Amino acid sequence: MSKIKNIPTWVSIPEQSDFSVQNLPFGIFSVGKSSPRVGIAIGNQIIDLAAVAAYGLFVNLNFNVAVFEKSTLNDFIATGKTNWSSLRNRIQELLNEDNYELKSIAKEVLVPMEKATMHLPVSIGDYTDFYSSREHATNVGKLFRDPENALMPNWEHMPVAYHGRSSSIVVSGTDIRRPSGQTKTSAATAPSFGPTTSLDFELEMAFIIGKSTNLGDQVSTDQAEDHIFGMVLFNDWSARDIQKWEYVPLGPFLGKSFASSMSPWIVTLEALQPFKTDAVKKDTEILPYLKCVQDFNIDINLEAYIQPKNGEEELISTTNYKYLYWNYCQQLAHHTINGCNVNIGDLLASGTISGPDENSFGSLLEITAGGKKSLSLNNNVERKFLEDGDSITLCGFAQKDNVRVGFGEVTAKILPQ
Amino acid sequence: MSKIKNIPTWVSIPEQSDFSVQNLPFGIFSVGKSSPRVGIAIGNQIIDLAAVAAYGLFVNLNFNVAVFEKSTLNDFIATGKTNWSSLRNRIQELLNEDNYELKSIAKEVLVPMEKATMHLPVSIGDYTDFYSSREHATNVGKLFRDPENALMPNWEHMPVAYHGRSSSIVVSGTDIRRPSGQTKTSAATAPSFGPTTSLDFELEMAFIIGKSTNLGDQVSTDQAEDHIFGMVLFNDWSARDIQKWEYVPLGPFLGKSFASSMSPWIVTLEALQPFKTDAVKKDTEILPYLKCVQDFNIDINLEAYIQPKNGEEELISTTNYKYLYWNYCQQLAHHTINGCNVNIGDLLASGTISGPDENSFGSLLEITAGGKKSLSLNNNVERKFLEDGDSITLCGFAQKDNVRVGFGEVTAKILPQ
Repeated sequence: MSKIKNIPTWVSIPEQSDFSVQNLPFGIFSVGKSSPRVGIAIGNQIIDLAAVAAYGLFVNLNFNVAVFEKSTLNDFIATGKTNWSSLRNRIQELLNEDNYELKSIAKEVLVPMEKATMHLPVSIGDYTDFYSSREHATNVGKLFRDPENALMPNWEHMPVAYHGRSSSIVVSGTDIRRPSGQTKTSAATAPSFGPTTSLDFELEMAFIIGKSTNLGDQVSTDQAEDHIFGMVLFNDWSARDIQKWEYVPLGPFLGKSFASSMSPWIVTLEALQPFKTDAVKKDTEILPYLKCVQDFNIDINLEAYIQPKNGEEELISTTNYKYLYWNYCQQLAHHTINGCNVNIGDLLASGTISGPDENSFGSLLEITAGGKKSLSLNNNVERKFLEDGDSITLCGFAQKDNVRVGFGEVTAKILPQ
Repeated sequence: MSKIKNIPTWVSIPEQSDFSVQNLPFGIFSVGKSSPRVGIAIGNQIIDLAAVAAYGLFVNLNFNVAVFEKSTLNDFIATGKTNWSSLRNRIQELLNEDNYELKSIAKEVLVPMEKATMHLPVSIGDYTDFYSSREHATNVGKLFRDPENALMPNWEHMPVAYHGRSSSIVVSGTDIRRPSGQTKTSAATAPSFGPTTSLDFELEMAFIIGKSTNLGDQVSTDQAEDHIFGMVLFNDWSARDIQKWEYVPLGPFLGKSFASSMSPWIVTLEALQPFKTDAVKKDTEILPYLKCVQDFNIDINLEAYIQPKNGEEELISTTNYKYLYWNYCQQLAHHTINGCNVNIGDLLASGTISGPDENSFGSLLEITAGGKKSLSLNNNVERKFLEDGDSITLCGFAQKDNVRVGFGEVTAKILPQ
């Protein structure tokens, strides 16, 4: 693969910033009481696209720049892949160290991130959660079901998934209230009711649909990338005790639907292209509709941090998106093979991403073996599951040839019931 | 209970019409190339509410009548329960035989149903499918799992449910294409791919959320009716072979997400109040949050008809909404007990409604015992599952004191893959 092009810029970008000139992720921001609108992250600042457009710097773009004044990205996404790319090229041109068009009005159109409030970037019609990490599915199967037959027979043949709840997806920074529900220990004869005692995070990534389909259409693995706008970090909060009692036979419901958190910046698929890497080797023959002409994955470093109540933030997991057994092309091809339609803004999450060793587990369920052992933190703090006041932060970034394309973070604190 | 009031009207309403003066269901219709807008069904006609408003007959209503020009009911629903009721009272007044306000302009504001096209009545954010018929859950448990332990231990303690796919919900009359997918017989060592060979219908009803909640809010069984706008007939098409191979452990996915059909007219909860009846007796003690001050169900007669390709329509099931073990208040209380928010337009379906005997089964899976025996139809036609060209029609109506409040129908034909 060729080296990633270095793009010298006049904007000050801190070393190790996730938001390089090669990234340019999209989000929805507001300042004070202004209306939420479309922005692009660069270093520690946000490019106010509607403001830039008002200066006439987007006159050569082939779409109505009024989409930058909307409170979700859906209308901008609907302008299509060619326009996403034209805008990206134009922004890179404007940021180039030799260009003065934007530089001369920088104070008017660049907003410091610390002054901005970030909002949910897209209106999400449907949310699907896959289960595509073999390591995670195996770990959970051992704990919830049969240690000898942890992986279900269908798992190596299809990207298993379920429909999630889209209404309760919130943007990073939104506090999460501990949910109540029914739980039942195996010793009890009847269920009892109360706040969950096994609240967990799930380290995931998700992709956002960029091109809708009609009911009956199928998206092949080859076509899949044309239907994806970009990716985010995703934390699929889980109440393990509620989940365990409710999930047979129809799958997870209230154990998940109380909240999921997503990062505010959507990193485009175009920005992620240079970080493609080899796919996980599959020993089982898969059906033709799931094969990729060139199988691949993406090398994205992922980290989970816990900040216990009144404590200090600590790294508790280091994993990678590339560990997924099924890539996003296979996920989308599977999702639409029955003719199910997808819409712009739909969110398709990966499922918890665990790696091969204990330091790479993407949930407390796996880290503490279902609460059988404790996670030891600094200052003699121990955790089996999350306690009120704890915060979880997920980070992710791709890096190559000194170019970093990162996702920022998705963070949230647990409030008491 | 008091008798239902008779309301003499100047409108011609055919005997046994579902759409009586006591009903007044809401839908979205268009005529020719006109924009879809809000209508109320009366007899064989549709009241064009925007047209009535233009004549000034709604000047005493306390909301902006521009909501009648929208292509979904969501904005009208958002005006609130008091306004739904005021409009209902005003329409009943206008239809009264002594009233000439509407009668004098009837030709301008009443549209014959045969001239109208019906559309999906609401924009549906999230769709949830319950599993609240004990008979259905038992029948399916016997076929899919263990005949000795058909009902899961959680079933009598909670209204079990899963998230469905909202994008593929279509209005009655939309053809359904036979989906393809992975299936595996128990004898095979690997799955194979192709069109489903066990396409089925599911006779369901669904309710539509009428008042949104915030994340973290719980809706008690007592408050539930304030959050529900009305009900529809619902057919949750199912590919049994795809479902069987994919559904463990995360529940149904592609076996359902190719399509669900709903009836175009939403019957309001207010119109259904007179048909409340006793709840199913529960032998198992349930948790307090699922108890109703006065437990009830609704007496709605339900029927399923099949019209085999080139054949004649035949009744294949007669059941009743009142057979549901969990009523809609319990379903909504359970759904929100973890703080999950609901939005106006969300659709919550009952799950297949089967009754106690063989004539009351709400799916072919149950009627043919999973394809083990044939359903015998006229002219020596037999069916185990649906064939291309077959149509399924579901009907439903409540009736008491010579007053009928019906749902019309939800019908669809199967197209080949």
